[in-house]
Amino acid sequence: MHPLVKNSIGREVPSYIDGIGKLTPFAGAFAHTTQKTNASLPASSHRPGDVKLVKSIREALEKSGLADGMVLSFHHHFRNGDHLMNMVMDQVAEMGIRDITISPSSMQSIHDHLIAHIRKGVITGIRTSGLRGELARQISAEGILPTPVMIRSHGGRPRSIESGDSKIDIAIIGAPASDPHGNVNGVEGPNACGSLGYAMADAAFAQKTIVVTDHLVSHPVHPVSIPQTQVDYVVVTDGIGDPKGIVSGATRITRNPLELLIAEKACQTILASELVKEGFSFQAGTGGSSLAVAHFLRQYMREHSIKGSFASGGINGYLVDMLEEGLFNCLLDVQCFDLKAIESIRNNPHHLEMSASYYANPHNKGCVAHNLDIMILSATEIDVNFNVNVITGSNGIMMGASGGHCDTAAGSKLSVVVAPLFRGRIPIVLDEVTTVVTPGESIDVLVTEYGVAVNPARKDLKDRFQDCGLSVMEIHDLKEMAEKITGKPRKPMVTEDIVGLVEYRDGTIIDTIKKVTT
Amino acid sequence: MHPLVKNSIGREVPSYIDGIGKLTPFAGAFAHTTQKTNASLPASSHRPGDVKLVKSIREALEKSGLADGMVLSFHHHFRNGDHLMNMVMDQVAEMGIRDITISPSSMQSIHDHLIAHIRKGVITGIRTSGLRGELARQISAEGILPTPVMIRSHGGRPRSIESGDSKIDIAIIGAPASDPHGNVNGVEGPNACGSLGYAMADAAFAQKTIVVTDHLVSHPVHPVSIPQTQVDYVVVTDGIGDPKGIVSGATRITRNPLELLIAEKACQTILASELVKEGFSFQAGTGGSSLAVAHFLRQYMREHSIKGSFASGGINGYLVDMLEEGLFNCLLDVQCFDLKAIESIRNNPHHLEMSASYYANPHNKGCVAHNLDIMILSATEIDVNFNVNVITGSNGIMMGASGGHCDTAAGSKLSVVVAPLFRGRIPIVLDEVTTVVTPGESIDVLVTEYGVAVNPARKDLKDRFQDCGLSVMEIHDLKEMAEKITGKPRKPMVTEDIVGLVEYRDGTIIDTIKKVTT
Repeated sequence: MHPLVKNSIGREVPSYIDGIGKLTPFAGAFAHTTQKTNASLPASSHRPGDVKLVKSIREALEKSGLADGMVLSFHHHFRNGDHLMNMVMDQVAEMGIRDITISPSSMQSIHDHLIAHIRKGVITGIRTSGLRGELARQISAEGILPTPVMIRSHGGRPRSIESGDSKIDIAIIGAPASDPHGNVNGVEGPNACGSLGYAMADAAFAQKTIVVTDHLVSHPVHPVSIPQTQVDYVVVTDGIGDPKGIVSGATRITRNPLELLIAEKACQTILASELVKEGFSFQAGTGGSSLAVAHFLRQYMREHSIKGSFASGGINGYLVDMLEEGLFNCLLDVQCFDLKAIESIRNNPHHLEMSASYYANPHNKGCVAHNLDIMILSATEIDVNFNVNVITGSNGIMMGASGGHCDTAAGSKLSVVVAPLFRGRIPIVLDEVTTVVTPGESIDVLVTEYGVAVNPARKDLKDRFQDCGLSVMEIHDLKEMAEKITGKPRKPMVTEDIVGLVEYRDGTIIDTIKKVTT
Repeated sequence: MHPLVKNSIGREVPSYIDGIGKLTPFAGAFAHTTQKTNASLPASSHRPGDVKLVKSIREALEKSGLADGMVLSFHHHFRNGDHLMNMVMDQVAEMGIRDITISPSSMQSIHDHLIAHIRKGVITGIRTSGLRGELARQISAEGILPTPVMIRSHGGRPRSIESGDSKIDIAIIGAPASDPHGNVNGVEGPNACGSLGYAMADAAFAQKTIVVTDHLVSHPVHPVSIPQTQVDYVVVTDGIGDPKGIVSGATRITRNPLELLIAEKACQTILASELVKEGFSFQAGTGGSSLAVAHFLRQYMREHSIKGSFASGGINGYLVDMLEEGLFNCLLDVQCFDLKAIESIRNNPHHLEMSASYYANPHNKGCVAHNLDIMILSATEIDVNFNVNVITGSNGIMMGASGGHCDTAAGSKLSVVVAPLFRGRIPIVLDEVTTVVTPGESIDVLVTEYGVAVNPARKDLKDRFQDCGLSVMEIHDLKEMAEKITGKPRKPMVTEDIVGLVEYRDGTIIDTIKKVTT
C-alpha cells in the first residue's frame, strides 16, 4: 500500500507510489510557484554530413537505442485522426520491447488499439492529459495498467518536461512536413494539422527525437515549428494521421437551445464583470456552451467597436472569423481544432503558433494563461466548493481530459464555468466531485440555466452582478435544485486501488482516481 | 603561472587559469562532438498579475539581484550603434558593483567607453567573439583586464551557454520592440535591427533576463523572437541603439579591383568544385573579397538557372536581392547587416530569423553551418598549415572577431579563404599565424590574386581545379612570393602574460593571445 496524506483541499493522496516515486500533495494553486530545475538539453554528436533520414520507424527506434523501461512521448494534434502512436507501439511490440511508459499530450478513442499492448506488458505506464473510450474503461474498471495513469494539464506537462520531473527517452513527432534535416512544420503537406505546440517541449528535451512525416520537402522547410537542432532521425512513411479526425463535436458552436441559453447568461456575466473592453483577452474551452459564449461576445464587440488583444488555446474557425473581422489583434494557437484554423495559421501572420509551455506552463517566466482576462470553462461535475471535474464520469470511469482547465482557471482574471444543472438524470452540481482537476479557488463563477453562483472569495463580482440585475444564487441552492430534479446522486463504487493520479499544474497531486468496482 | 600543454596543432595553451578554471586543449575539429550538458532552464516565480515593467535599468538590475562577481550578457545586433552595454555598465558602476564579467556576443569600437569601468574594477572579465579599437589595444598592450578575454565563436557561444559551461546571471536584451510582458522582436520600432539571433540562448538560459526597449507596444507583440516566458523585467528607455551603426564597410561589396580579382578567382574555384548546382547552400563572411564572390556567383546562377536552397549568416541587402530574384529558396539570418536586410526579414516569409545555436552550435543535433556547401571566408593571416587568424593583427594586438569563421569552415563541404597575398607591407600568407582561430584542417582552399592553394588533405579538389585549368600553387610558394615582396615578417614581441584565450567552437582552447611588449 502507498502512504496517504490529505492535501489542502481534503483529498487523500499518496506520498509515494512504486514505479512513479515520491509525490507532493497539492497545497493551493500558487503554493509552489518555483521549483528546482534539473532538465538539460540532450547531448548530441552530430557531424557535418551525418544523414538523419532512416528507412523505417524500426530503424529510427533502434538507432535511438530503444530499450525496455523507456519513456516514449507523442503529441495529439491529430486528435482522433492520429495513426502514429498506434503504428509506433505496434513496432515497439514487434521488436520485443517491454515496460514502456507512453507520454502523449493526450489520447483519444482511436488509441483503444493500445489495449493489447498494455495487456501484454509492452506498455506499463501512461502519462497523458486525458483518455477515453474502451482503453479508459479497462484501466478504470479492470486495472489493466500496472502503474496509475499520470494525468497532467497542458501547462503541467511542459513544466514537468522542462523541469526534468518527466524525462523522455524518445520523442516521436508526427510531422505534416519535414525536410531531411528534421526542420518540421504542421502547415504544409496533405495532412497539415496546423500548430505543433504540444510537441515542442518534447523535441527540445527528449534524449532522442524522431520525426515521422508523410511529406518530405527540400531543406530548409519554413516556417520552422520544430528546428533541426532538436531532431535525431527522420522517417518518411504513409499516413501519419488523418486531419479529418481533428474535428470533433466538442469544437463546434452548439445549436442546443439549453446550451445557448447558458452561453447567453455567461456572456451577460462577463459583460457585468466589466472586463470586456479594448485590449481584453479571451479563451473558451471546448464543450457545448463554452464556444457559444464567443458567439454572443462577438455581437457585443461589434456593437461597441471593441477589439481584444488575443484569443488563445485550441483555435477553431469561429475564432478565425473573429480575427479576420478585426475583433482580436491575434490568435495564440497551441492546437488547431478544424481545417479553417489550419488554413489560417498557414496564411495569417496574426495567427501565431505557441508552445504548450508558452501557453500554460506555470513555472516559466510568464505564460499566456496568466495573461487571460476571461476564461470560459466547461465541467463534467462541479461541487459546492467550486472544485471541477473534467476527467471522470459520475460512474468514476475516466472519459475526459484535464487539458488547459486548471491552467487557465488559475491564470485568468475571471474564470467562468458554464454547465447545465444536470445532464440526463445526472446532476452536475454536487456536494463533492468524483475527481478534482481544478481547485475551487481558481473558479470565480458558475453559470447554469437556472442561475449564476459566485465563489464567496469573489464578493466583488457578486456585488457587481447583482448591481447588473443578474440572478445570483448560492451554489448550495443550485445543488439542491439539481438534486430535487435528479434525486440524490450515488457516488461511484470504488476500491482502494489507485488507477490514476491527477497532477496539478505545479507538479503536486490534487486527486487520485480509484479503480471502480464492476 | 598557469600550467601549459601543447594542443594538437602545436600551440601551447594553459590547462588552468585562475578566475576561469580548468581548460581543455584543442584536439581536432571534431574530437569533441558531444559533451555533458548541465544547463537547465532558470527557475522563476511568476504569478498572474505580476508586473514586469520597471521604471529604470537600475530598478531592473536591483530586482534581478545584481551583485559583485556576476556575469552580464549582451548582444551585438546594433554593432557599432549599440548604446545599451555602455548605458547598463555605467549604471552598474554607479551602483558600486564590482568584478562583473561581461559576455556580449561581440564588441565594437563604441565600447571603448568601457575602458574606464575596467580600470576601476567594475569589469574584470570579458567573453566575446571579438573586440577592437582602443579597448582591444589596452587589453592587448597594457593588460588592463585581470583575466584573459575569452574569445568564442558564434557557434561556440550558444554551445557554452546551452551546455552550462558559460553561466549567465543577467541577460540584457536590447529590444527594438517589446510588449509589457516581454515578448520581443527586432523588426518593429524606430530602431529595428532585424534578427535577434545572438540573444536567444542568453534569454533562454540566463537566471534573469531584462528587456530594454525604446518601443513599447501592446501585448502580444508579434512576430515573437524572444518569448515572454523567458523575460523577467521590461524597461522602457530612449535610444537603445542606432541602426545606422549596423552598417559597416565590411558589409558592402568591394570596388577595389584587387579584391574583385580575388573574388572572381574564388568564384571560378567554387564552380570548379561542382558544388554550385540546384539546391546548393552558400555563405560569405564579411570582408573585402568575401561578399564580392556572391556577385560573380549571381551571374552564373542566373545564366544557368540554378536556384540554391539557402544563404545564411549575417545577411545583407545583396543577398536579399538574390532571394527576391529567386536565386535562393530562403535566407537564414542570425544578424542583419544593413537596413535592406531588416526590411526584408520584416516582410519576406522566406527570410528567416535563426538563433546562433541553430546557425552554428556544434553540439546540438545539427546546425545550419553543418549544412553549408560553400563557405567564403576572409583572413587576417593564414599560414602554410592553412591555420587562419582573424582576431589579432600582425602586431599581436586584438582587432577583429572570431565570428562564425571556425564554425562554417568546419561545417561546410568547401571552405574557401579569400585574401590578398599582402596588405600594405604586411604579408598575409605566413609560416605561422600570430593567433589560430580556425585550424587548417577546416580550410580547403586559399584564393589569392597570385594563385590558388589547396589543402593537401583535399587532393580531390586539387585534381579538379587543375583539370579546369586553374593555376594551383603550393601554399609555401605563395608564402615565398609574399615574403619576396614584403620581406620576412617580424613576429610581434610578446610577454608570457596571457591576455586572451581563443576557445574553439567545441569548448577547447585552440590558442592564446599574449600581451605585447610596448
